[in-house]
Amino acid sequence: MRTRVTDMLGIEFPIFAFSHCRDVVAAVSRAGGMGVLGALYFTPEELEVELAWIDEHAGGRPYGVDVVMPASYEGAGLDVDSPEDLVARLQGMIPEGHRRFVDDLLAAHGVAELPDSEAGAGKVLLGWTDATARPQVEVALRHPIALLANALGPPPADVVEAAHARGVRVAALASTPGHAVKQVEVGVDIVVAQGTEAGGHTGDISTMVLIPQVVDVVDVPVLAAGGIGNGRQMAAGMALGAEGVWTGSVWLAVEEADTPEPARRRILAATSRDTVRSRSWTGKPARLLRNEWTEAWEAGDSPGTLPMPLQFMLVSDALRRIGRSDAAELATFPAGQIIGAMNQVRSAKEVVFTMVEEYIEAVERLGRLSG
Amino acid sequence: MRTRVTDMLGIEFPIFAFSHCRDVVAAVSRAGGMGVLGALYFTPEELEVELAWIDEHAGGRPYGVDVVMPASYEGAGLDVDSPEDLVARLQGMIPEGHRRFVDDLLAAHGVAELPDSEAGAGKVLLGWTDATARPQVEVALRHPIALLANALGPPPADVVEAAHARGVRVAALASTPGHAVKQVEVGVDIVVAQGTEAGGHTGDISTMVLIPQVVDVVDVPVLAAGGIGNGRQMAAGMALGAEGVWTGSVWLAVEEADTPEPARRRILAATSRDTVRSRSWTGKPARLLRNEWTEAWEAGDSPGTLPMPLQFMLVSDALRRIGRSDAAELATFPAGQIIGAMNQVRSAKEVVFTMVEEYIEAVERLGRLSG
Repeated sequence: MRTRVTDMLGIEFPIFAFSHCRDVVAAVSRAGGMGVLGALYFTPEELEVELAWIDEHAGGRPYGVDVVMPASYEGAGLDVDSPEDLVARLQGMIPEGHRRFVDDLLAAHGVAELPDSEAGAGKVLLGWTDATARPQVEVALRHPIALLANALGPPPADVVEAAHARGVRVAALASTPGHAVKQVEVGVDIVVAQGTEAGGHTGDISTMVLIPQVVDVVDVPVLAAGGIGNGRQMAAGMALGAEGVWTGSVWLAVEEADTPEPARRRILAATSRDTVRSRSWTGKPARLLRNEWTEAWEAGDSPGTLPMPLQFMLVSDALRRIGRSDAAELATFPAGQIIGAMNQVRSAKEVVFTMVEEYIEAVERLGRLSG
Repeated sequence: MRTRVTDMLGIEFPIFAFSHCRDVVAAVSRAGGMGVLGALYFTPEELEVELAWIDEHAGGRPYGVDVVMPASYEGAGLDVDSPEDLVARLQGMIPEGHRRFVDDLLAAHGVAELPDSEAGAGKVLLGWTDATARPQVEVALRHPIALLANALGPPPADVVEAAHARGVRVAALASTPGHAVKQVEVGVDIVVAQGTEAGGHTGDISTMVLIPQVVDVVDVPVLAAGGIGNGRQMAAGMALGAEGVWTGSVWLAVEEADTPEPARRRILAATSRDTVRSRSWTGKPARLLRNEWTEAWEAGDSPGTLPMPLQFMLVSDALRRIGRSDAAELATFPAGQIIGAMNQVRSAKEVVFTMVEEYIEAVERLGRLSG
């Protein structure tokens, strides 16, 4: 297969695999697609370790890194000395009533406290402020990455420049045609147009409706994202005008993924109606597994969610506590509607190859239908 | 183009056009697609007039009729003598607080009362109960229709039989794979798998995710619906495994449509973010133009919506009053996300032909990309 994207990045198939798991990233790149490591959860030191591992295991094939530099978040204008200072200032902005709501919810489900040694020791800010994402970008650019992607709007212009100076291409996710135009204005090389059915942070326009609108307003290549997990969906995305596909949820259940077993079981059992767009994870709308956690934040006694990054700071410890408990009914995570079609565990390579085969079959079938 | 659907119905292009406007229905059928008249708003007598007109103006080409026989609605089990009796019994089930909420909302926007001669004279029940939809079916089956479609779930088995006895094919809309299986069990010939981006009554799974799942669980042909307004989207729907496309919103703005001018202007100006899935029209989730009407029903002081058919009975007069007023901020109607891509008025024939041309271009491009 050949599109502007395969030419630009030197890959065999225009299949991009977003994953927080280095094994998946390396496996997809080795199979001819392009793995993209989500850096969000890693400190700069941890990210360095992950990328060094990928450098050794991707077989010299191109791979990418995805960071989250939101165009807007609480505390963006604060004059702070360090990430620690920023965290302290932001912690003070979380209302007591919200903390109580979370405590009560966990108590109602019998979720145990963290041991004293671990309370408050978790990562509460992650890479979604300028101050915390920039060190990740610096680490990423020290590695032979082919692509730097930004998950929430246009990256800062100087980040785009720094990437380009090192021969790294830049992609950014867009959920409206207007977002896409702004991204191209700051120099983005590839627009990832992502429909509402996608997992994680997402807009409200569907992939079917969004892709042609984005393709028509930008001259850079577009990847179709949201709801894409098989080759028919890949062909559909390309029929809409995209030059490749950006996938995420489908990699949660592959053999290589470090997805915890309870989460994997729930993904394999879920239908496409078992996700919901919710602000209860980060404060910005993200598609998550629908359960008692997401529903509690919508209920009548919910205090409402806080803006990014306060919401995750509020719930960070709670999510760790839930993860260690038996309260599976509260354990949520980003997941797209495609999880309803995922019901077996395959290797990443098999997913890539099956997607390509099914893509070719779909295109041949279309040719036959129109004579 | 040739699929099982074109063969089954003797049409040139597998493009189905749902419209409440007879002119659109006839024009699409004459252009080689298949117009399908939405019967919902018509009394049996009115429907007779519309279908007689289409018989004269469709040039002998196949056309269809769409009715709404929901599988469940309030009052379904009532023992009533007549539709009028049913209306009276159902009126008694509408809480006073809900009537007051509607009155207050309209007063706040300066919407005038109806003249005494017209108050309560409007249609409040429409064709969405068994008692009111069956007479529509009887009228439809007296005409040379090729297709009878049901918009809310599987039609009653005896209706399917009556249609088949007259050589009429039956279609039904499905928003989950499970719905589709049930429809095939009652004898439906074509499943219309409709994604959440569609206008009117709709589920929550996107077209991209839904179509392959439906195609994989039924053996009858599937039409892709939801978000389809151009040939790239048609090609995408077919790539997903569909054998044709079912379209709706795109016909609201064609030359032949009887869409009121203010509504047409708003459609042409809207973005794809200007719709919302709301129960404020009929009590079941339907995608509508998002405005102060839909928002009022979501606000903190909303009494919540009533189940079908009570909600429309409650708001029927209000919608007529709004339609006659200058309160455009309250005037809503069913509309899919595709309205964001509709910005010119074309003839129905031009829409059909452009869709086919663009479909062919998209398929040829796919062939080139994969060599």
